[in-house]
Amino acid sequence: MPALEIVTIGDELLLGLTIDTNGAWLARELGSFGVTVARRASVADTAEEIVDALQSALDRTGAVITTGGLGPTADDLTKPAIAGLFGRPLYFDEKQWEHIRQLWRSRRGTEPPEINKQQVMLPEGCTVLTNRHGTAPGILLEDERGRWVAMLPGVPREMRGIFREELAPIVQSRLGGNAPPIRTLTIRTTGIAESALPERLGDAVRGFPGLSLAYLPGQEGVDLRLTSRHFTPDEADRALRAGADTITSRVGTPVYAEGDTDMAEVVLAALRARGKRLAVAESCTGGLLGARLTAIPGSSDVFLGGIISYANEVKVGLLGVTPESLAQLGAVSEEVARAMAAGARRQTGAEAGIGITGIAGPGGATPTKPVGTVCIAVDIEGEVVAITSMMIGDRAEIRFRAAQAAMDMLRRRLAQT
Amino acid sequence: MPALEIVTIGDELLLGLTIDTNGAWLARELGSFGVTVARRASVADTAEEIVDALQSALDRTGAVITTGGLGPTADDLTKPAIAGLFGRPLYFDEKQWEHIRQLWRSRRGTEPPEINKQQVMLPEGCTVLTNRHGTAPGILLEDERGRWVAMLPGVPREMRGIFREELAPIVQSRLGGNAPPIRTLTIRTTGIAESALPERLGDAVRGFPGLSLAYLPGQEGVDLRLTSRHFTPDEADRALRAGADTITSRVGTPVYAEGDTDMAEVVLAALRARGKRLAVAESCTGGLLGARLTAIPGSSDVFLGGIISYANEVKVGLLGVTPESLAQLGAVSEEVARAMAAGARRQTGAEAGIGITGIAGPGGATPTKPVGTVCIAVDIEGEVVAITSMMIGDRAEIRFRAAQAAMDMLRRRLAQT
Repeated sequence: MPALEIVTIGDELLLGLTIDTNGAWLARELGSFGVTVARRASVADTAEEIVDALQSALDRTGAVITTGGLGPTADDLTKPAIAGLFGRPLYFDEKQWEHIRQLWRSRRGTEPPEINKQQVMLPEGCTVLTNRHGTAPGILLEDERGRWVAMLPGVPREMRGIFREELAPIVQSRLGGNAPPIRTLTIRTTGIAESALPERLGDAVRGFPGLSLAYLPGQEGVDLRLTSRHFTPDEADRALRAGADTITSRVGTPVYAEGDTDMAEVVLAALRARGKRLAVAESCTGGLLGARLTAIPGSSDVFLGGIISYANEVKVGLLGVTPESLAQLGAVSEEVARAMAAGARRQTGAEAGIGITGIAGPGGATPTKPVGTVCIAVDIEGEVVAITSMMIGDRAEIRFRAAQAAMDMLRRRLAQT
Repeated sequence: MPALEIVTIGDELLLGLTIDTNGAWLARELGSFGVTVARRASVADTAEEIVDALQSALDRTGAVITTGGLGPTADDLTKPAIAGLFGRPLYFDEKQWEHIRQLWRSRRGTEPPEINKQQVMLPEGCTVLTNRHGTAPGILLEDERGRWVAMLPGVPREMRGIFREELAPIVQSRLGGNAPPIRTLTIRTTGIAESALPERLGDAVRGFPGLSLAYLPGQEGVDLRLTSRHFTPDEADRALRAGADTITSRVGTPVYAEGDTDMAEVVLAALRARGKRLAVAESCTGGLLGARLTAIPGSSDVFLGGIISYANEVKVGLLGVTPESLAQLGAVSEEVARAMAAGARRQTGAEAGIGITGIAGPGGATPTKPVGTVCIAVDIEGEVVAITSMMIGDRAEIRFRAAQAAMDMLRRRLAQT
């Protein structure tokens, strides 16, 4: 399988002050035409580090893409370091300098500063990868053994532009060819533990012939990602579809979506299909559920809104929660959640209502109700179901999981109607 | 300068399907006590790749932290691969198994499935790094030459917890030494364009002697980050403090916080200091503002809640917006925003109210009101101020910027009282 390595250059990355999104973007682009990234490395902006990382990458795969270190400032050493590694002196490229001058004149109405001349000092015998989005040109260097390095700037917009317009076709012709594309299909599950999945999956636990299966646990649940790396596009689509269908039938109800579809989209579609509108009453989530639902364009046709009843007075005043139930059972109780769900419906005229009340922490725990205790009620036209659940994680995760669980509860109930 | 390397393990990273945030987080933590990350690598989840990357990292720096590949599923090969590299057979750790059983009993009320036993198969002679946040323990392995590898799980919450509670002290004692720490201080601004900052900063535009200055524009505003790499801890603290004070005094009102303090914390503190309570009425943000405020622990003492008035009927029914103003001025108008803010106060008894109504897109634009048009009103004890603003970005950014702008409006008004 054709492979290359990605080396991202810059002290900021090693200091953790910048998160490298270029490497991930490049990996996805390369995968789409069947080129694997064998390894990724981030190195400091010193000639020694760059040369050492490049050398070992070339020894392993013979093909490397670098990002970063092509700017005009003194700490940009990528070019001289790699030119040295390939034994190529740098020359002043008149044509590229003209390109930069035009760019400055059109954008800033001035001549570029002298310092930019450093950006057009290019290794002899290189292929220039024209940068239509900024000043630093990309550079492709190849040695007599056919091993090559492509240098791209670190600015994402420029890096992406040069890759798509100039480098991608070259990489494809050299490595891509008819290599099978990397295709993935994700099956999203929630309300089931990662370690409980293999039992349900049975012999599909490791994937299917030609397809690998990855378990991706997160706040939303456990995603199951099938990846095809060896099939032709058509074979891949068929195999992924068949695999996803098998997984879905074996895992059952916990499967709520495919791809990157959010639970909110699933719930909104289910409401739409059944002609029901939703309102929410949120205590510990404080608006997070409403925010997730309204993050989806077009949600307004089935989501009416609701009440953020963070204070008990609001629970009583706007949702009809009784002071007695607050006093006797506490704000975090199924009875209060039920009253909240019903109150949300009453105040908005919605057919479906959700009530969430819980202890997100770090404070607020009681001997009987630890941090993470969440009560959720779903009211569909007066039929109310309520649960008490323990959410794992910190405050943010508990809140997110509570909103996710509430939507999942509504999803499962709507599926039965 | 003491250094180690970070190796993140998982096919997901090489396929670009996951963005590695663990490496950056670890680098910042290590830098805070003067340990440099010499190199970062991401490798596939195969024994060969893991061993090869570990081997060369150990040869270079003799100290490595890995993340990922410690889960219970079959594709988690980090532990056996590295145990093999160190020539240590795996044994079943009763104590850790008991820990996992307790975790499952308390959280799920059941016994853990057999498959979890894989997580407590540990290399002989290792130091267990207790995981108080999940099931997979961290592992520290050292060879006879004093070279070591620390394995942490890939789940960020678990990785961070184990690092801070268990690994950080060990790394500090081994590598910390007296190296100058990398310290940063971030000054957070909002409501001012990046290009308008240099003029206000004057000669501080490039930082201060010994301190570099980075401009980090984002949805919340523009962060100004000062970084010290060469000073002793005391010198660094003094220099950063002095630099931050100069920047704050020159930039003025747009500065709302330092470090990673969120605008919500600033607003909640300002309300607390003035003995005022807040309620919100959200249309286009759909609960996002409430969610951001309640994301802060302890917000309940000054945040009462509010109404998500996504549908116009809710604006009329619960907030007292008049059908006339909806008909004549439209839902996205300063008058409606004013009525929403007042309605939120009336319904909850809060002293301060915020109303937000806008067009988050992609749909909903009118000839006079393009996508991004947002009306915000802040009502403090009956004194209402409303603005109409154009937010830049996609739906998510427009909603986030609207919530940020609303909180900033309240912050600036409270500062005057």
